[in-house]
Amino acid sequence: MLSHVSIVLVGTSHPGNIGAAARAMKNMGLQHLVLVSPDSFPHPDADSRASGAGDVLSGARVVSSLAEALADRTVVFGASARQRTLPWPVVEPAVAAKGAMAAAAQGGRVAFVFGREDSGLSNDELQRCHYHVQIPTVDGFSSLNLAMAVQVISYELRLELLGLLEKARGKARPSTRSADLMLSPRDEGWDVELASMEEVDQFLIHLEQVLVEIEFHDPDRPRQLLQRLRRLFLRAHPDRMEINILRGVLRNVQRKAAISDGNKPH
Amino acid sequence: MLSHVSIVLVGTSHPGNIGAAARAMKNMGLQHLVLVSPDSFPHPDADSRASGAGDVLSGARVVSSLAEALADRTVVFGASARQRTLPWPVVEPAVAAKGAMAAAAQGGRVAFVFGREDSGLSNDELQRCHYHVQIPTVDGFSSLNLAMAVQVISYELRLELLGLLEKARGKARPSTRSADLMLSPRDEGWDVELASMEEVDQFLIHLEQVLVEIEFHDPDRPRQLLQRLRRLFLRAHPDRMEINILRGVLRNVQRKAAISDGNKPH
Repeated sequence: MLSHVSIVLVGTSHPGNIGAAARAMKNMGLQHLVLVSPDSFPHPDADSRASGAGDVLSGARVVSSLAEALADRTVVFGASARQRTLPWPVVEPAVAAKGAMAAAAQGGRVAFVFGREDSGLSNDELQRCHYHVQIPTVDGFSSLNLAMAVQVISYELRLELLGLLEKARGKARPSTRSADLMLSPRDEGWDVELASMEEVDQFLIHLEQVLVEIEFHDPDRPRQLLQRLRRLFLRAHPDRMEINILRGVLRNVQRKAAISDGNKPH
Repeated sequence: MLSHVSIVLVGTSHPGNIGAAARAMKNMGLQHLVLVSPDSFPHPDADSRASGAGDVLSGARVVSSLAEALADRTVVFGASARQRTLPWPVVEPAVAAKGAMAAAAQGGRVAFVFGREDSGLSNDELQRCHYHVQIPTVDGFSSLNLAMAVQVISYELRLELLGLLEKARGKARPSTRSADLMLSPRDEGWDVELASMEEVDQFLIHLEQVLVEIEFHDPDRPRQLLQRLRRLFLRAHPDRMEINILRGVLRNVQRKAAISDGNKPH
């Protein structure tokens, strides 16, 4: 099930960190690495730090935007070192791993996103994630090396996998981690497949357009409106039918709004 | 209590790994580093990888034998990648951390010992340890980078410390490790109060009314539309500001729809 999980590194400066992350991934059984606009890749420093995980590096997908990296994903966690101005659902690594593996077990496609060495993920990038995952650190020295953060998350994913394997074999794992926890209250028996990130993004773009047309949203005075709506809908984890319903509602609103403006429907 | 725990690195070849280990330790609140016969220390590579943890490096004790490093310790864990010919008590990292912190709480002095990059700890060295600690990895690619192994153990120690602190304060930690179940990952630090059920219901009634007005919803052929929308919004657990935003959107839609119907706004 770890094959359903990808590690996404955004804007990495030091190719050595890419190699070290690849090695950490492979140690824990992860294979899918996606690089969003790395500064230097491929690079000899990446190869040397990968040390036996060259296959993860050579299989890495390099893309030019985070949206592209996440297009087919259904559950996205973004690594964040600190509380943001707009609070977001924050989980600790073990909880994230549990949620990720539960999603993967149902065919979900999961991504963990890690930001730049110096500045992490931007607010805009973090707002593309369903959850923020925070690795607990001491106050005042909270910035983990990038590959170390990948190691901790990959380690938690492996522990969760082992826990699930043990459970499947009918014996409880003698560990503190065996408690049940549900990231989303829809782990079992959902009737419709979760919407992909691309489908959710298209809905949010459509929503923004309608909010402008009905004069609710003024792009020149954005306040936090769009971020708050994005956060709300990501939190709900819409399935495909729900997204279809919401898009249908938006189309009907546009038709009405166009009539009221004396224009043709869109 | 982490001040009772030291990290001991034996025969380290690459000074960069010493620096990276120091950073990982400091991130997690550990300070005491002991180096047994390092190949090169101090070294600029150690300084550069330590990146802010220079105090851990400058406070490191350099000794010439493992026995000397362990002389004042009461509980010793040795990192081991594989099963030894002579079986030894083997624990996983979370269990080791629990044991270490329990010992520290009673005034014990704990060490975690890590071996050489290429060959780990010798049998003789491992036999100086009370327990062997094994970080779970995939078969066939089991050798973690040295600093990564230090990161995983330091992380588990921090988790255990946090768990103990919470317990001491009399509240369970909302974690998979305390057997608590968290339905919503936003228990703490949200900026706005959650909406009451009444507020959510009023929004849903308003939404239904608008869906009729924009001719999206036909009350005579309800299908499952309203149930699906109710389920979606309940799942998101909206806060009061989010409900206010959504109500505002509905009002603007009604204003536009009323104009298009040639009626006054509601």
